[in-house]
Amino acid sequence: MAGKVFFSVSMSLDGFIAPDSHAVGLRAMDSFFEPGKQDDPDVRRWLAQWGELQQWLFPLRFFQENLKLGEGGEEGLDNDIAKDTFERTGASVMGKRMFDLGERSWPREAPFHTPVFVVTHTERAPWERPGGTTFHFVDDGIEHAVDLARAAAGDRDVRIAGGGATILACLNAGLVDEFSIALAPVLFGAGTRLFDGVDASRIALEPIRSEPSPRVTHLTYAVHAR
Amino acid sequence: MAGKVFFSVSMSLDGFIAPDSHAVGLRAMDSFFEPGKQDDPDVRRWLAQWGELQQWLFPLRFFQENLKLGEGGEEGLDNDIAKDTFERTGASVMGKRMFDLGERSWPREAPFHTPVFVVTHTERAPWERPGGTTFHFVDDGIEHAVDLARAAAGDRDVRIAGGGATILACLNAGLVDEFSIALAPVLFGAGTRLFDGVDASRIALEPIRSEPSPRVTHLTYAVHAR
Repeated sequence: MAGKVFFSVSMSLDGFIAPDSHAVGLRAMDSFFEPGKQDDPDVRRWLAQWGELQQWLFPLRFFQENLKLGEGGEEGLDNDIAKDTFERTGASVMGKRMFDLGERSWPREAPFHTPVFVVTHTERAPWERPGGTTFHFVDDGIEHAVDLARAAAGDRDVRIAGGGATILACLNAGLVDEFSIALAPVLFGAGTRLFDGVDASRIALEPIRSEPSPRVTHLTYAVHAR
Repeated sequence: MAGKVFFSVSMSLDGFIAPDSHAVGLRAMDSFFEPGKQDDPDVRRWLAQWGELQQWLFPLRFFQENLKLGEGGEEGLDNDIAKDTFERTGASVMGKRMFDLGERSWPREAPFHTPVFVVTHTERAPWERPGGTTFHFVDDGIEHAVDLARAAAGDRDVRIAGGGATILACLNAGLVDEFSIALAPVLFGAGTRLFDGVDASRIALEPIRSEPSPRVTHLTYAVHAR
């Protein structure tokens, strides 16, 4: 049985999944290894907003273990959801902009532990990381990337990992079966909007689950054509 | 004891509280009494989106009774929340654009049953409706309108009824203590965004409640300065 295609993101209450802007984000990711760059006020703001958006993830047992940050961590609903999102994923599809951010900041054991298909415009040989993550670069379109991910995932699901433009292209192309949002109690005011440019006239949502945790509200919808 | 200042709106998952555009909305409200206008495809789309956003309200016992549409209707969480929102409200503040929409469509017994302070730029005598709703027109600023509403509300709360620009002006001015969103499973793609222009750097949100119903997710946040 073929798996589903889904995405799962943290979103601010005003609809953003990344702070403003991508260029600042690249400098922010570099700053992990060149701490002098954290003197840049834009970088500090980017990292602070990113931290607020993702703050529900950091203390979780799953997050700590997957990134080998340490033993322990919190259990409960947030942890169950983060762990289930990881375990259901047999392969991921990722845009080049998200890859560029991650290439600067993932540990050597990148946190996917599955094939990842990166949608790009240039050829590049597969990049194999320790721990089971291999990045494959797909230069002939997002639909082909999703097809390759489906084949690689077997009976597990395909996660559209991000960023915003890649998720939106998949949603508008009718490739997404289901999505989850961890709605965070924060306002960004600017940044990458999840649904900017969505073809609203062709997409109907069916609410599947809504589960509050103390830190975020987990929302899941099935996507139907209308 | 003084009450709180709050707002309570239905919002699409992509952040809109009214369809595009206000001009079409005015035609849509007129169309209740001139059905020929519903042949306009923009008006049909506006009414369809408005209906999807507010669909959780229409079947409720409170909604049916308050608008004298009939006996009966659904009870449960959605009804409790709609009823509590009404009962806590001792006075409302409303922008002129929302008033213009409502003046075309409210029944003679307007559904507020309290004083309503309309923020406007022109003088107008109070407009008293049967059933206890009196619209007062305030032409010297939103803060004065909120002050007048506070005084009129006594120990009950002041609701910033809408529309988007008025809610945002109150939020950015630090006048809002708390707000609730009924997050609807619908995408608009365009329209009036609730948080467009929010001063995100000065507002911190504290999650108070998150309650899923089968139709929407009810989210409540306290607003703090940061």
